[in-house]
Amino acid sequence: MIDGLLMNFQAKMDARLDILLTESGQLYDSVLSAARYSIIDGGKRIRPFILTEFYKICGGDDDCAMNFAAAIEMIHTYSLIHDDLPCMDNDDFRRGKPSSHKQFGEAMALLAGDALLTEAFNVASKTIGIPADRIVKALNILAENAGVSGMIGGQVIDLQGEKTGLTADDRLLMYKLKTGALIKVSAQIGAVLAGADTELELAAAEYGENLGIAFQLVDDILDYEGDFEALGKPTGSDEKNGKVTFVKLLGIENCKLLAAEHTKKALATLNKLQGDTTNIKELTEYLLERKN
Amino acid sequence: MIDGLLMNFQAKMDARLDILLTESGQLYDSVLSAARYSIIDGGKRIRPFILTEFYKICGGDDDCAMNFAAAIEMIHTYSLIHDDLPCMDNDDFRRGKPSSHKQFGEAMALLAGDALLTEAFNVASKTIGIPADRIVKALNILAENAGVSGMIGGQVIDLQGEKTGLTADDRLLMYKLKTGALIKVSAQIGAVLAGADTELELAAAEYGENLGIAFQLVDDILDYEGDFEALGKPTGSDEKNGKVTFVKLLGIENCKLLAAEHTKKALATLNKLQGDTTNIKELTEYLLERKN
Repeated sequence: MIDGLLMNFQAKMDARLDILLTESGQLYDSVLSAARYSIIDGGKRIRPFILTEFYKICGGDDDCAMNFAAAIEMIHTYSLIHDDLPCMDNDDFRRGKPSSHKQFGEAMALLAGDALLTEAFNVASKTIGIPADRIVKALNILAENAGVSGMIGGQVIDLQGEKTGLTADDRLLMYKLKTGALIKVSAQIGAVLAGADTELELAAAEYGENLGIAFQLVDDILDYEGDFEALGKPTGSDEKNGKVTFVKLLGIENCKLLAAEHTKKALATLNKLQGDTTNIKELTEYLLERKN
Repeated sequence: MIDGLLMNFQAKMDARLDILLTESGQLYDSVLSAARYSIIDGGKRIRPFILTEFYKICGGDDDCAMNFAAAIEMIHTYSLIHDDLPCMDNDDFRRGKPSSHKQFGEAMALLAGDALLTEAFNVASKTIGIPADRIVKALNILAENAGVSGMIGGQVIDLQGEKTGLTADDRLLMYKLKTGALIKVSAQIGAVLAGADTELELAAAEYGENLGIAFQLVDDILDYEGDFEALGKPTGSDEKNGKVTFVKLLGIENCKLLAAEHTKKALATLNKLQGDTTNIKELTEYLLERKN
Protein backbone atom coordinates (compact mmCIF):
# COMPACT_ATOMS: atom_id res chain seq x y z
CA MET A 1 0.00 0.00 0.00
CA ILE A 2 2.84 2.40 0.82
CA ASP A 3 4.25 1.67 -2.65
CA GLY A 4 1.09 3.00 -4.27
CA LEU A 5 1.00 6.03 -1.98
CA LEU A 6 4.62 6.88 -2.75
CA MET A 7 4.06 6.43 -6.48
CA ASN A 8 1.11 8.80 -6.44
CA PHE A 9 3.05 11.33 -4.41
CA GLN A 10 6.09 11.03 -6.71
CA ALA A 11 3.92 11.90 -9.72
CA LYS A 12 2.46 14.90 -7.90
CA MET A 13 5.88 16.08 -6.71
CA ASP A 14 7.41 15.67 -10.16
CA ALA A 15 4.59 17.74 -11.67
CA ARG A 16 5.29 20.52 -9.14
CA LEU A 17 9.06 20.38 -9.73
CA ASP A 18 8.43 20.45 -13.48
CA ILE A 19 6.52 23.72 -13.10
CA LEU A 20 8.94 25.27 -10.60
CA LEU A 21 11.96 24.53 -12.80
CA THR A 22 10.43 25.24 -16.20
CA GLU A 23 12.80 26.50 -18.85
CA SER A 24 11.78 29.91 -20.16
CA GLY A 25 13.71 30.40 -23.37
CA GLN A 26 16.46 32.39 -21.65
CA LEU A 27 20.21 32.15 -22.24
CA TYR A 28 20.60 30.52 -18.82
CA ASP A 29 18.16 27.67 -19.49
CA SER A 30 21.08 25.25 -19.63
CA VAL A 31 21.45 25.36 -15.84
CA LEU A 32 17.75 24.56 -15.47
CA SER A 33 18.20 21.59 -17.82
CA ALA A 34 21.08 20.37 -15.67
CA ALA A 35 19.06 20.85 -12.47
CA ARG A 36 16.08 19.00 -13.99
CA TYR A 37 18.33 16.12 -15.11
CA SER A 38 19.28 15.49 -11.49
CA ILE A 39 15.99 16.15 -9.75
CA ILE A 40 13.27 14.88 -12.11
CA ASP A 41 14.46 11.31 -12.26
CA GLY A 42 12.14 9.03 -10.32
CA GLY A 43 13.71 9.59 -6.89
CA LYS A 44 11.69 8.21 -3.97
CA ARG A 45 10.76 11.70 -2.65
CA ILE A 46 10.96 10.44 0.93
CA ARG A 47 11.65 13.89 2.45
CA PRO A 48 8.84 15.80 0.72
CA PHE A 49 6.48 12.89 1.43
CA ILE A 50 7.31 13.12 5.14
CA LEU A 51 6.84 16.91 5.08
CA THR A 52 3.39 16.77 3.52
CA GLU A 53 2.32 13.86 5.74
CA PHE A 54 3.26 15.77 8.90
CA TYR A 55 1.47 18.82 7.52
CA LYS A 56 -1.66 16.65 7.23
CA ILE A 57 -1.17 14.90 10.59
CA CYS A 58 -0.97 18.32 12.27
CA GLY A 59 -4.13 19.62 10.66
CA GLY A 60 -3.19 20.93 7.18
CA ASP A 61 -5.85 19.94 4.64
CA ASP A 62 -4.59 21.63 1.46
CA ASP A 63 -1.60 21.71 -0.92
CA CYS A 64 0.00 24.80 0.62
CA ALA A 65 3.04 22.87 1.92
CA MET A 66 4.01 21.63 -1.56
CA ASN A 67 6.51 24.42 -2.26
CA PHE A 68 8.40 23.63 0.93
CA ALA A 69 8.24 19.94 -0.03
CA ALA A 70 9.82 20.81 -3.38
CA ALA A 71 12.41 22.97 -1.59
CA ILE A 72 13.50 20.06 0.62
CA GLU A 73 13.98 17.85 -2.43
CA MET A 74 15.94 20.62 -4.20
CA ILE A 75 18.31 20.94 -1.23
CA HIS A 76 18.72 17.17 -1.04
CA THR A 77 19.50 17.03 -4.77
CA TYR A 78 21.98 19.94 -4.69
CA SER A 79 23.87 18.14 -1.91
CA LEU A 80 24.11 14.99 -4.06
CA ILE A 81 25.38 16.94 -7.09
CA HIS A 82 28.10 18.71 -5.09
CA ASP A 83 28.93 15.50 -3.19
CA ASP A 84 29.55 13.64 -6.44
CA LEU A 85 32.04 16.26 -7.77
CA PRO A 86 35.63 15.12 -8.36
CA CYS A 87 36.94 17.22 -5.44
CA MET A 88 34.45 15.47 -3.11
CA ASP A 89 33.47 11.79 -3.50
CA ASN A 90 34.22 11.72 -7.24
CA ASP A 91 31.26 9.48 -8.03
CA ASP A 92 30.49 8.86 -11.72
CA PHE A 93 27.00 7.45 -11.18
CA ARG A 94 23.92 8.57 -9.32
CA ARG A 95 20.51 6.94 -9.40
CA GLY A 96 21.52 4.71 -12.29
CA LYS A 97 22.83 7.37 -14.67
CA PRO A 98 25.95 9.50 -15.09
CA SER A 99 26.28 12.04 -12.29
CA SER A 100 25.82 15.72 -13.11
CA HIS A 101 29.48 16.59 -13.75
CA LYS A 102 29.90 13.54 -15.99
CA GLN A 103 26.92 14.67 -18.03
CA PHE A 104 27.41 18.47 -18.09
CA GLY A 105 30.98 19.14 -16.94
CA GLU A 106 32.16 20.33 -13.54
CA ALA A 107 31.37 24.03 -13.92
CA MET A 108 27.75 23.41 -14.89
CA ALA A 109 27.31 20.80 -12.14
CA LEU A 110 28.63 23.29 -9.59
CA LEU A 111 26.16 25.93 -10.83
CA ALA A 112 23.27 23.44 -11.03
CA GLY A 113 23.88 22.63 -7.35
CA ASP A 114 24.11 26.32 -6.42
CA ALA A 115 20.92 26.92 -8.42
CA LEU A 116 18.93 24.18 -6.69
CA LEU A 117 20.01 25.43 -3.26
CA THR A 118 19.04 29.00 -4.08
CA GLU A 119 15.79 28.10 -5.86
CA ALA A 120 14.79 26.07 -2.80
CA PHE A 121 14.58 29.30 -0.79
CA ASN A 122 12.97 31.06 -3.73
CA VAL A 123 10.09 28.59 -4.06
CA ALA A 124 9.66 28.08 -0.31
CA SER A 125 9.37 31.85 0.22
CA LYS A 126 6.69 31.94 -2.53
CA THR A 127 4.40 29.77 -0.36
CA ILE A 128 0.85 31.10 -0.28
CA GLY A 129 -2.08 30.33 2.01
CA ILE A 130 0.04 30.02 5.16
CA PRO A 131 0.64 32.88 7.66
CA ALA A 132 3.94 34.75 7.13
CA ASP A 133 5.24 34.08 10.65
CA ARG A 134 5.04 30.32 10.07
CA ILE A 135 6.80 30.69 6.72
CA VAL A 136 9.66 32.68 8.28
CA LYS A 137 10.02 30.08 11.04
CA ALA A 138 9.98 27.20 8.55
CA LEU A 139 12.55 28.97 6.31
CA ASN A 140 14.79 29.46 9.31
CA ILE A 141 14.54 25.80 10.38
CA LEU A 142 15.31 24.79 6.79
CA ALA A 143 18.36 27.06 6.42
CA GLU A 144 19.73 26.24 9.86
CA ASN A 145 19.54 22.50 9.27
CA ALA A 146 20.87 22.67 5.70
CA GLY A 147 23.77 24.85 6.91
CA VAL A 148 26.92 24.62 9.00
CA SER A 149 25.28 23.20 12.13
CA GLY A 150 23.30 20.76 9.97
CA MET A 151 23.85 19.07 6.62
CA ILE A 152 26.96 20.99 5.58
CA GLY A 153 28.50 20.40 9.01
CA GLY A 154 27.96 16.68 8.42
CA GLN A 155 29.70 16.95 5.04
CA VAL A 156 32.65 18.67 6.71
CA ILE A 157 32.98 15.97 9.37
CA ASP A 158 32.75 13.31 6.64
CA LEU A 159 35.45 15.06 4.60
CA GLN A 160 37.80 15.38 7.57
CA GLY A 161 37.07 11.80 8.61
CA GLU A 162 38.43 10.51 5.32
CA LYS A 163 41.83 11.77 6.40
CA THR A 164 41.79 11.31 10.16
CA GLY A 165 39.21 8.57 10.74
CA LEU A 166 36.14 8.99 12.94
CA THR A 167 35.19 7.55 16.31
CA ALA A 168 31.78 5.84 16.57
CA ASP A 169 30.42 8.94 18.36
CA ASP A 170 31.72 11.32 15.70
CA ARG A 171 30.30 9.10 12.99
CA LEU A 172 26.90 9.12 14.68
CA LEU A 173 27.06 12.94 14.83
CA MET A 174 28.04 12.99 11.16
CA TYR A 175 24.99 10.84 10.29
CA LYS A 176 22.69 13.02 12.39
CA LEU A 177 23.87 16.08 10.49
CA LYS A 178 24.64 14.93 6.96
CA THR A 179 21.54 12.79 6.40
CA GLY A 180 19.53 13.21 9.58
CA ALA A 181 19.13 16.99 9.67
CA LEU A 182 17.16 17.22 6.42
CA ILE A 183 14.94 14.25 7.29
CA LYS A 184 14.36 15.66 10.78
CA VAL A 185 13.24 19.04 9.44
CA SER A 186 11.02 17.46 6.80
CA ALA A 187 8.82 16.27 9.67
CA GLN A 188 9.33 19.43 11.75
CA ILE A 189 8.57 21.89 8.93
CA GLY A 190 5.39 20.01 8.03
CA ALA A 191 4.26 20.48 11.63
CA VAL A 192 5.30 24.16 11.77
CA LEU A 193 3.50 25.05 8.53
CA ALA A 194 0.32 23.46 9.89
CA GLY A 195 0.59 25.62 13.00
CA ALA A 196 1.54 22.84 15.44
CA ASP A 197 2.32 23.84 19.05
CA THR A 198 5.84 23.38 20.46
CA GLU A 199 5.14 19.92 21.87
CA LEU A 200 3.91 18.57 18.53
CA GLU A 201 6.74 20.29 16.69
CA LEU A 202 9.33 18.66 18.94
CA ALA A 203 7.68 15.26 18.58
CA ALA A 204 7.87 15.63 14.80
CA ALA A 205 11.55 16.58 15.04
CA GLU A 206 12.27 13.63 17.35
CA TYR A 207 10.57 11.25 14.93
CA GLY A 208 12.57 12.67 12.04
CA GLU A 209 15.87 12.51 13.88
CA ASN A 210 15.49 8.82 14.67
CA LEU A 211 14.25 8.00 11.19
CA GLY A 212 17.23 9.90 9.74
CA ILE A 213 19.75 7.81 11.69
CA ALA A 214 17.98 4.57 10.76
CA PHE A 215 17.89 5.71 7.12
CA GLN A 216 21.64 6.32 6.99
CA LEU A 217 22.41 3.02 8.72
CA VAL A 218 20.30 1.19 6.12
CA ASP A 219 22.22 3.07 3.42
CA ASP A 220 25.49 1.75 4.86
CA ILE A 221 24.07 -1.77 5.04
CA LEU A 222 22.90 -1.57 1.42
CA ASP A 223 26.27 -0.20 0.31
CA TYR A 224 27.84 -3.25 1.98
CA GLU A 225 25.50 -5.97 0.80
CA GLY A 226 23.24 -4.46 -1.89
CA ASP A 227 23.72 -4.72 -5.65
CA PHE A 228 24.29 -2.14 -8.40
CA GLU A 229 21.09 -2.92 -10.23
CA ALA A 230 18.80 -2.26 -7.27
CA LEU A 231 20.76 0.78 -6.05
CA GLY A 232 21.57 2.45 -9.38
CA LYS A 233 25.12 3.11 -8.16
CA PRO A 234 28.19 1.00 -7.43
CA THR A 235 28.16 -0.85 -4.09
CA GLY A 236 31.17 -1.15 -1.83
CA SER A 237 31.98 2.51 -2.51
CA ASP A 238 32.45 3.26 1.19
CA GLU A 239 34.98 0.44 1.51
CA LYS A 240 36.64 1.51 -1.75
CA ASN A 241 36.92 5.07 -0.44
CA GLY A 242 38.44 3.76 2.80
CA LYS A 243 35.53 5.04 4.89
CA VAL A 244 35.18 3.44 8.31
CA THR A 245 31.40 3.01 8.22
CA PHE A 246 29.26 1.67 11.03
CA VAL A 247 29.27 -1.68 9.27
CA LYS A 248 33.00 -1.83 9.86
CA LEU A 249 32.84 -0.39 13.37
CA LEU A 250 29.99 -2.51 14.70
CA GLY A 251 29.64 -5.43 12.31
CA ILE A 252 26.72 -5.93 9.93
CA GLU A 253 24.40 -7.61 12.45
CA ASN A 254 24.80 -4.90 15.11
CA CYS A 255 24.26 -2.31 12.42
CA LYS A 256 20.94 -3.91 11.54
CA LEU A 257 19.95 -4.03 15.21
CA LEU A 258 20.77 -0.33 15.63
CA ALA A 259 18.74 0.60 12.54
CA ALA A 260 15.81 -1.39 13.93
CA GLU A 261 16.17 0.32 17.29
CA HIS A 262 16.03 3.84 15.85
CA THR A 263 13.09 2.81 13.67
CA LYS A 264 11.31 1.59 16.81
CA LYS A 265 12.04 4.92 18.58
CA ALA A 266 10.68 6.81 15.57
CA LEU A 267 7.48 4.73 15.62
CA ALA A 268 7.07 5.24 19.37
CA THR A 269 7.26 9.02 18.91
CA LEU A 270 4.36 8.88 16.49
CA ASN A 271 2.09 7.86 19.39
CA LYS A 272 2.46 11.40 20.76
CA LEU A 273 0.60 12.76 17.73
CA GLN A 274 -3.17 13.07 17.43
CA GLY A 275 -3.69 12.94 13.66
CA ASP A 276 -3.81 9.92 11.35
CA THR A 277 -0.28 8.46 11.28
CA THR A 278 -1.09 5.33 9.22
CA ASN A 279 0.86 6.41 6.13
CA ILE A 280 3.90 7.63 8.01
CA LYS A 281 4.03 4.40 10.08
CA GLU A 282 4.02 2.36 6.89
CA LEU A 283 6.73 4.53 5.41
CA THR A 284 8.89 4.13 8.51
CA GLU A 285 8.71 0.33 8.35
CA TYR A 286 9.19 0.34 4.58
CA LEU A 287 12.41 2.37 4.89
CA LEU A 288 13.91 -0.21 7.27
CA GLU A 289 13.14 -3.05 4.85
CA ARG A 290 14.03 -1.27 1.60
CA LYS A 291 16.48 -2.74 -0.90
CA ASN A 292 17.50 0.56 -2.53
CA MET B 1 33.59 61.97 3.74
CA ILE B 2 32.25 58.80 2.08
CA ASP B 3 35.56 57.11 2.95
CA GLY B 4 34.95 57.69 6.65
CA LEU B 5 31.33 56.55 6.41
CA LEU B 6 32.33 53.36 4.62
CA MET B 7 35.10 52.67 7.14
CA ASN B 8 32.70 53.04 10.05
CA PHE B 9 30.18 50.81 8.35
CA GLN B 10 32.83 48.21 7.51
CA ALA B 11 33.79 47.96 11.18
CA LYS B 12 30.15 47.55 12.18
CA MET B 13 29.50 44.97 9.45
CA ASP B 14 32.62 42.99 10.33
CA ALA B 15 31.56 42.91 13.98
CA ARG B 16 28.17 41.50 12.94
CA LEU B 17 29.74 38.93 10.59
CA ASP B 18 32.15 37.94 13.34
CA ILE B 19 29.22 37.13 15.64
CA LEU B 20 27.13 35.43 12.96
CA LEU B 21 30.00 33.17 11.90
CA THR B 22 31.51 32.46 15.32
CA GLU B 23 33.21 29.11 15.71
CA SER B 24 31.65 27.03 18.44
CA GLY B 25 34.16 24.29 19.22
CA GLN B 26 32.41 21.80 16.94
CA LEU B 27 34.01 19.31 14.57
CA TYR B 28 32.75 21.36 11.63
CA ASP B 29 34.42 24.62 12.73
CA SER B 30 36.90 24.29 9.87
CA VAL B 31 34.25 25.34 7.35
CA LEU B 32 33.49 28.42 9.44
CA SER B 33 37.20 29.27 9.47
CA ALA B 34 37.28 28.99 5.70
CA ALA B 35 34.14 31.13 5.36
CA ARG B 36 35.58 33.76 7.73
CA TYR B 37 38.88 33.81 5.78
CA SER B 38 37.00 34.92 2.68
CA ILE B 39 34.42 37.24 4.19
CA ILE B 40 36.16 39.01 7.08
CA ASP B 41 38.90 40.58 5.07
CA GLY B 42 38.35 44.30 4.70
CA GLY B 43 36.03 44.13 1.71
CA LYS B 44 34.30 47.42 0.87
CA ARG B 45 30.84 46.18 1.96
CA ILE B 46 29.17 48.17 -0.82
CA ARG B 47 26.08 45.95 -0.99
CA PRO B 48 25.27 45.89 2.73
CA PHE B 49 25.98 49.63 2.92
CA ILE B 50 23.45 50.26 0.16
CA LEU B 51 20.92 48.00 1.89
CA THR B 52 21.12 49.78 5.22
CA GLU B 53 21.16 53.24 3.59
CA PHE B 54 17.94 52.48 1.67
CA TYR B 55 16.44 51.10 4.87
CA LYS B 56 17.18 54.49 6.48
CA ILE B 57 16.08 56.55 3.46
CA CYS B 58 12.72 54.74 3.51
CA GLY B 59 12.15 55.35 7.20
CA GLY B 60 14.00 52.62 9.15
CA ASP B 61 15.71 54.09 12.22
CA ASP B 62 17.21 51.00 13.88
CA ASP B 63 19.67 48.14 13.23
CA CYS B 64 17.01 45.59 12.26
CA ALA B 65 18.20 45.37 8.64
CA MET B 66 21.74 44.31 9.61
CA ASN B 67 21.11 40.57 9.29
CA PHE B 68 19.90 41.02 5.73
CA ALA B 69 22.93 43.25 5.10
CA ALA B 70 25.17 40.42 6.34
CA ALA B 71 23.23 37.95 4.19
CA ILE B 72 23.86 39.98 1.04
CA GLU B 73 27.60 40.04 1.76
CA MET B 74 27.58 36.28 2.43
CA ILE B 75 25.93 35.59 -0.93
CA HIS B 76 28.37 37.91 -2.69
CA THR B 77 31.31 36.15 -1.02
CA TYR B 78 30.05 32.62 -1.78
CA SER B 79 29.79 33.61 -5.44
CA LEU B 80 33.42 34.78 -5.44
CA ILE B 81 34.64 31.56 -3.80
CA HIS B 82 32.83 29.32 -6.30
CA ASP B 83 33.81 31.63 -9.18
CA ASP B 84 37.50 31.28 -8.32
CA LEU B 85 37.42 27.45 -8.33
CA PRO B 86 39.57 25.64 -10.91
CA CYS B 87 36.52 24.44 -12.87
CA MET B 88 35.32 28.07 -13.15
CA ASP B 89 37.72 31.04 -13.54
CA ASN B 90 40.61 29.25 -11.82
CA ASP B 91 41.81 32.38 -10.04
CA ASP B 92 44.59 31.97 -7.48
CA PHE B 93 44.17 35.39 -5.85
CA ARG B 94 41.27 37.29 -4.39
CA ARG B 95 41.45 40.58 -2.53
CA GLY B 96 45.24 40.38 -2.28
CA LYS B 97 45.54 36.90 -0.80
CA PRO B 98 45.31 33.29 -1.99
CA SER B 99 41.77 32.38 -3.03
CA SER B 100 39.82 29.92 -0.87
CA HIS B 101 40.72 26.74 -2.76
CA LYS B 102 44.42 27.68 -2.78
CA GLN B 103 44.27 28.13 0.97
CA PHE B 104 41.98 25.25 2.03
CA GLY B 105 41.72 22.91 -0.95
CA GLU B 106 38.88 22.56 -3.44
CA ALA B 107 36.52 20.47 -1.32
CA MET B 108 36.60 22.89 1.61
CA ALA B 109 36.24 25.91 -0.70
CA LEU B 110 33.18 24.29 -2.28
CA LEU B 111 31.66 23.68 1.16
CA ALA B 112 32.61 27.16 2.43
CA GLY B 113 30.71 28.63 -0.52
CA ASP B 114 27.71 26.36 0.07
CA ALA B 115 27.84 27.30 3.75
CA LEU B 116 27.84 31.06 3.12
CA LEU B 117 24.91 30.76 0.71
CA THR B 118 22.90 28.69 3.18
CA GLU B 119 23.83 30.77 6.25
CA ALA B 120 22.72 33.89 4.35
CA PHE B 121 19.14 32.58 4.44
CA ASN B 122 19.63 31.40 8.00
CA VAL B 123 20.67 34.81 9.36
CA ALA B 124 18.22 36.77 7.19
CA SER B 125 15.32 34.63 8.42
CA LYS B 126 16.46 35.32 12.02
CA THR B 127 15.70 39.05 11.54
CA ILE B 128 13.78 40.49 14.48
CA GLY B 129 11.88 43.75 14.88
CA ILE B 130 10.43 43.70 11.35
CA PRO B 131 6.97 42.30 10.42
CA ALA B 132 7.04 38.73 9.10
CA ASP B 133 5.35 39.59 5.79
CA ARG B 134 8.15 42.03 4.94
CA ILE B 135 10.77 39.41 5.86
CA VAL B 136 9.17 36.79 3.61
CA LYS B 137 9.00 39.29 0.75
CA ALA B 138 12.63 40.33 1.23
CA LEU B 139 13.77 36.69 1.42
CA ASN B 140 11.95 35.98 -1.82
CA ILE B 141 13.52 38.97 -3.59
CA LEU B 142 16.92 37.85 -2.32
CA ALA B 143 16.55 34.22 -3.43
CA GLU B 144 15.03 35.11 -6.78
CA ASN B 145 17.85 37.52 -7.65
CA ALA B 146 20.62 35.27 -6.35
CA GLY B 147 19.16 32.35 -8.34
CA VAL B 148 18.70 31.21 -11.92
CA SER B 149 16.96 34.35 -13.18
CA GLY B 150 19.53 36.50 -11.34
CA MET B 151 23.16 36.05 -10.29
CA ILE B 152 23.50 32.38 -11.16
CA GLY B 153 21.89 33.02 -14.56
CA GLY B 154 24.59 35.64 -15.15
CA GLN B 155 27.27 33.12 -14.24
CA VAL B 156 25.80 30.65 -16.70
CA ILE B 157 25.77 33.20 -19.55
CA ASP B 158 29.35 34.13 -18.67
CA LEU B 159 30.41 30.48 -18.70
CA GLN B 160 28.75 29.81 -22.07
CA GLY B 161 30.15 33.05 -23.47
CA GLU B 162 33.69 31.81 -22.91
CA LYS B 163 33.04 29.16 -25.52
CA THR B 164 30.69 30.85 -27.95
CA GLY B 165 31.32 34.58 -27.46
CA LEU B 166 28.62 37.08 -26.49
CA THR B 167 26.92 39.88 -28.38
CA ALA B 168 26.91 43.32 -26.73
CA ASP B 169 23.25 42.80 -25.74
CA ASP B 170 23.94 39.41 -24.19
CA ARG B 171 26.93 40.83 -22.34
CA LEU B 172 24.78 43.62 -20.96
CA LEU B 173 22.23 41.04 -19.79
CA MET B 174 25.06 39.04 -18.22
CA TYR B 175 26.23 42.14 -16.31
CA LYS B 176 22.70 42.94 -15.19
CA LEU B 177 22.37 39.44 -13.76
CA LYS B 178 25.83 38.44 -12.56
CA THR B 179 26.73 41.68 -10.79
CA GLY B 180 23.68 43.86 -11.14
CA ALA B 181 21.04 41.62 -9.57
CA LEU B 182 22.63 41.57 -6.11
CA ILE B 183 23.32 45.32 -6.14
CA LYS B 184 19.79 46.01 -7.35
CA VAL B 185 18.23 43.99 -4.53
CA SER B 186 20.49 45.55 -1.93
CA ALA B 187 18.63 48.80 -2.53
CA GLN B 188 15.26 47.10 -3.04
CA ILE B 189 15.43 44.94 0.10
CA GLY B 190 16.39 47.95 2.22
CA ALA B 191 13.23 49.66 1.00
CA VAL B 192 11.03 46.58 1.49
CA LEU B 193 12.23 45.98 5.06
CA ALA B 194 11.43 49.62 5.91
CA GLY B 195 7.89 49.12 4.60
CA ALA B 196 8.24 51.23 1.44
CA ASP B 197 5.27 51.34 -0.96
CA THR B 198 5.54 49.87 -4.46
CA GLU B 199 6.61 53.16 -6.07
CA LEU B 200 9.51 53.65 -3.65
CA GLU B 201 10.48 49.99 -3.91
CA LEU B 202 10.65 50.21 -7.71
CA ALA B 203 12.68 53.44 -7.54
CA ALA B 204 15.15 51.71 -5.23
CA ALA B 205 15.39 48.76 -7.63
CA GLU B 206 15.89 51.10 -10.61
CA TYR B 207 18.67 52.93 -8.78
CA GLY B 208 20.35 49.62 -7.93
CA GLU B 209 20.06 48.26 -11.44
CA ASN B 210 21.81 51.25 -12.97
CA LEU B 211 24.46 51.33 -10.27
CA GLY B 212 25.08 47.64 -10.81
CA ILE B 213 25.76 48.08 -14.53
CA ALA B 214 28.03 51.08 -13.88
CA PHE B 215 29.83 49.06 -11.20
CA GLN B 216 30.57 46.16 -13.54
CA LEU B 217 31.72 48.50 -16.32
CA VAL B 218 34.16 50.16 -13.91
CA ASP B 219 35.38 46.67 -12.93
CA ASP B 220 36.12 45.96 -16.60
CA ILE B 221 37.90 49.30 -16.97
CA LEU B 222 40.01 48.62 -13.87
CA ASP B 223 40.82 45.10 -15.07
CA TYR B 224 42.06 46.72 -18.29
CA GLU B 225 44.04 49.66 -16.91
CA GLY B 226 44.34 49.14 -13.14
CA ASP B 227 47.27 47.62 -11.27
CA PHE B 228 47.68 44.52 -9.08
CA GLU B 229 48.59 46.47 -5.96
CA ALA B 230 45.46 48.59 -5.91
CA LEU B 231 43.15 45.74 -6.96
CA GLY B 232 44.64 42.90 -4.93
CA LYS B 233 44.31 40.59 -7.92
CA PRO B 234 46.02 40.25 -11.29
CA THR B 235 44.88 42.71 -13.97
CA GLY B 236 44.30 41.81 -17.59
CA SER B 237 42.65 38.56 -16.45
CA ASP B 238 39.68 39.09 -18.75
CA GLU B 239 41.96 39.44 -21.75
CA LYS B 240 44.04 36.47 -20.56
CA ASN B 241 40.87 34.38 -20.28
CA GLY B 242 39.88 35.42 -23.79
CA LYS B 243 36.76 37.21 -22.57
CA VAL B 244 35.27 39.75 -24.96
CA THR B 245 34.57 42.46 -22.39
CA PHE B 246 32.86 45.76 -23.06
CA VAL B 247 36.29 47.37 -23.19
CA LYS B 248 37.01 45.23 -26.24
CA LEU B 249 33.54 45.65 -27.73
CA LEU B 250 33.18 49.41 -27.30
CA GLY B 251 36.67 50.73 -26.66
CA ILE B 252 37.87 52.09 -23.33
CA GLU B 253 36.54 55.62 -23.82
CA ASN B 254 33.03 54.53 -24.77
CA CYS B 255 33.10 52.18 -21.82
CA LYS B 256 33.82 55.11 -19.51
CA LEU B 257 31.03 57.14 -21.09
CA LEU B 258 28.56 54.27 -20.60
CA ALA B 259 29.57 53.87 -16.93
CA ALA B 260 29.06 57.62 -16.42
CA GLU B 261 25.68 57.44 -18.12
CA HIS B 262 24.36 54.65 -15.88
CA THR B 263 25.75 56.48 -12.84
CA LYS B 264 23.81 59.56 -13.93
CA LYS B 265 20.65 57.51 -14.34
CA ALA B 266 21.13 56.06 -10.86
CA LEU B 267 21.57 59.53 -9.37
CA ALA B 268 18.47 60.83 -11.19
CA THR B 269 16.40 58.00 -9.68
CA LEU B 270 17.37 59.12 -6.18
CA ASN B 271 15.36 62.30 -6.74
CA LYS B 272 12.19 60.19 -6.58
CA LEU B 273 12.93 59.40 -2.92
CA GLN B 274 11.88 61.54 0.04
CA GLY B 275 14.49 60.63 2.66
CA ASP B 276 18.06 61.88 3.08
CA THR B 277 20.03 60.54 0.10
CA THR B 278 23.30 62.41 0.80
CA ASN B 279 25.30 59.31 1.68
CA ILE B 280 24.04 57.19 -1.17
CA LYS B 281 24.73 60.01 -3.66
CA GLU B 282 28.30 60.24 -2.45
CA LEU B 283 28.69 56.48 -2.68
CA THR B 284 27.36 56.47 -6.24
CA GLU B 285 29.91 59.06 -7.37
CA TYR B 286 32.69 57.38 -5.41
CA LEU B 287 32.04 54.05 -7.15
CA LEU B 288 32.47 55.64 -10.58
CA GLU B 289 35.81 57.19 -9.58
CA ARG B 290 37.20 54.24 -7.57
CA LYS B 291 40.61 52.74 -8.31
CA ASN B 292 39.91 49.30 -6.86
